[in-house]
Amino acid sequence: MLSLRVMVSGGSVTQDGGDNGDRRGSARGGRAAAAALVECVPNFSEGSRPEVIDAIVAAAASVHGAAVLDRHADAVHNRMVLTIAGPPGPVAEAAFRATACAAQLIDLDVHRGEHPRIGATDVVPFVPLGATSMQLCVELAVRVGRRIAAELDLPVYLYGEAARRPERRRLPDLRRGEYERLRSYIAVEPSLAPDFGPHRVGRAGATAVGARRPLIAYNVTLATADLGIARAVARAIRESSGGLEAVQARGFRTADPGVMQVSTNLVDTSRTPMTLVFERIRQEAADHGVEVLQSELVGLAPAQALVDVARQALQFDRLDADSVLETRLLQHALGALDQ
Amino acid sequence: MLSLRVMVSGGSVTQDGGDNGDRRGSARGGRAAAAALVECVPNFSEGSRPEVIDAIVAAAASVHGAAVLDRHADAVHNRMVLTIAGPPGPVAEAAFRATACAAQLIDLDVHRGEHPRIGATDVVPFVPLGATSMQLCVELAVRVGRRIAAELDLPVYLYGEAARRPERRRLPDLRRGEYERLRSYIAVEPSLAPDFGPHRVGRAGATAVGARRPLIAYNVTLATADLGIARAVARAIRESSGGLEAVQARGFRTADPGVMQVSTNLVDTSRTPMTLVFERIRQEAADHGVEVLQSELVGLAPAQALVDVARQALQFDRLDADSVLETRLLQHALGALDQ
Repeated sequence: MLSLRVMVSGGSVTQDGGDNGDRRGSARGGRAAAAALVECVPNFSEGSRPEVIDAIVAAAASVHGAAVLDRHADAVHNRMVLTIAGPPGPVAEAAFRATACAAQLIDLDVHRGEHPRIGATDVVPFVPLGATSMQLCVELAVRVGRRIAAELDLPVYLYGEAARRPERRRLPDLRRGEYERLRSYIAVEPSLAPDFGPHRVGRAGATAVGARRPLIAYNVTLATADLGIARAVARAIRESSGGLEAVQARGFRTADPGVMQVSTNLVDTSRTPMTLVFERIRQEAADHGVEVLQSELVGLAPAQALVDVARQALQFDRLDADSVLETRLLQHALGALDQ
Repeated sequence: MLSLRVMVSGGSVTQDGGDNGDRRGSARGGRAAAAALVECVPNFSEGSRPEVIDAIVAAAASVHGAAVLDRHADAVHNRMVLTIAGPPGPVAEAAFRATACAAQLIDLDVHRGEHPRIGATDVVPFVPLGATSMQLCVELAVRVGRRIAAELDLPVYLYGEAARRPERRRLPDLRRGEYERLRSYIAVEPSLAPDFGPHRVGRAGATAVGARRPLIAYNVTLATADLGIARAVARAIRESSGGLEAVQARGFRTADPGVMQVSTNLVDTSRTPMTLVFERIRQEAADHGVEVLQSELVGLAPAQALVDVARQALQFDRLDADSVLETRLLQHALGALDQ
């Protein structure tokens, strides 16, 4: 849980400079001296064993000043996603402790799941919140990546904004062939040489550590037993196949054999809002004679993305995150803490 | 702006007891000892003169510990709504100072506007946030009401949960005949006797002070020049005429003679969500051959109400205020402040 001391010295999402309460003021402006707040959304290759999940969560939550805001486990993906937030130091420490814990408890040689993965802690993205810079998150990724390599003896790949090779910017590229490919070829294939750590993998596999903008992990389930249809829909909507801007997508099975899933990462909902993603999935599925069942969020979404959905649905003239009571209270609470 | 000192001693929306980060934990439970946080949403009878609006906002914002989160002025209604939040003491002081300022600057004898009103400061509702009790807000209303009567020499009517007569619970009843009726009859008509203050009105009129649950002030504009249609739609959807539960509604003109407005107060969106209100207004308007133009929010809305709209629009399996990053951060930030 965030502590007062840490928040006072470190926490501020945005600054509300408007003492006169004018919402058109500098509520989103940010002060140059604002202390940093970051998010980390590590993914672990365990989605069913509660004792393992609890141990990893407890390791992250053991750090004073780091708030574990959410966890989301999926047994079919055999994967868990944590959302951690706070000042950079405590969040980095929490991410490291969780990674160390996962390395002890997860064995990739026996891990099976629908979701591609390269390690026990598969991916550790740092995300700037509010006025925090991407550069700070890149530096954090490098620092935590080095430490994971040095102290846990794991191969580490820098990805996203922290990538040092262009072919490592995108996770799907980095993860091609998964853990099994690394196990066979990491020692001999130069393109697989990690940025930090040994040129060999143990049962904890390797970890991708990086920095990225906030993204929304958003899934839509389809009433079909045909994985091919979910994959075709995913292909039709994702940017890399000529679909929607800022959308990554992939088809997956679910626990129900009669239900398939289009799993997306929305990396910029100001370019492609959730409503458009949902509508396009619905249309593409309908072209295959398949109905959409429901939407699902993995982890948390920024208020703005959900408010955008409401704005479109009810034809609001103007509605944004600043229209939400809790967002305004947060700005003031963090402004208060930062004084 | 909220100060650290005040927030530490007074501010907590909810407590997140879940150190393990489990969202199914006690994030909404609240500790018995949680300090109170309240909202006050005073309405003033001035919607166009910027110097008057600014003066009232400045008066409210001059109180250390009270955060003016939002202001919303409407020239046609000739009315302004402020949203103030913080611990009870500072919020009460801010409401009083704003009321005192409005009494000096607004003359009801010359005030004209579409919205019914009885005073320069027309209504001062106190609203419990998070675990704060309604009883605390009732006590606050009585305290502030007494002070407005004593120090500003204004008639004060207690309304809503603070009402001492059943016929004063609802504002539309209390406001019937408006300022002009009070001016003529307050001295002679026993039913108009105020709860506090003189049995006469000056140019600042009278003020209704009360306590209520959070409500959403939500308007929908119609593409018609016929006020009668907006009124008919309002009548069809409001609870008091047999319409939707927990919905108050009224038809109004707007600045554009070709556009009319259905103005609603949604007093419990868990009973009647915004989406249903919008759909019913659309249907009723369509029955008159009129199209809906857009939705508008007056002031702020709680995250839950807007997330509910998104949940329905995109068929989410489960989505609530706890799915929003900012809401979770707020819980932790206020938990930190409260330690």
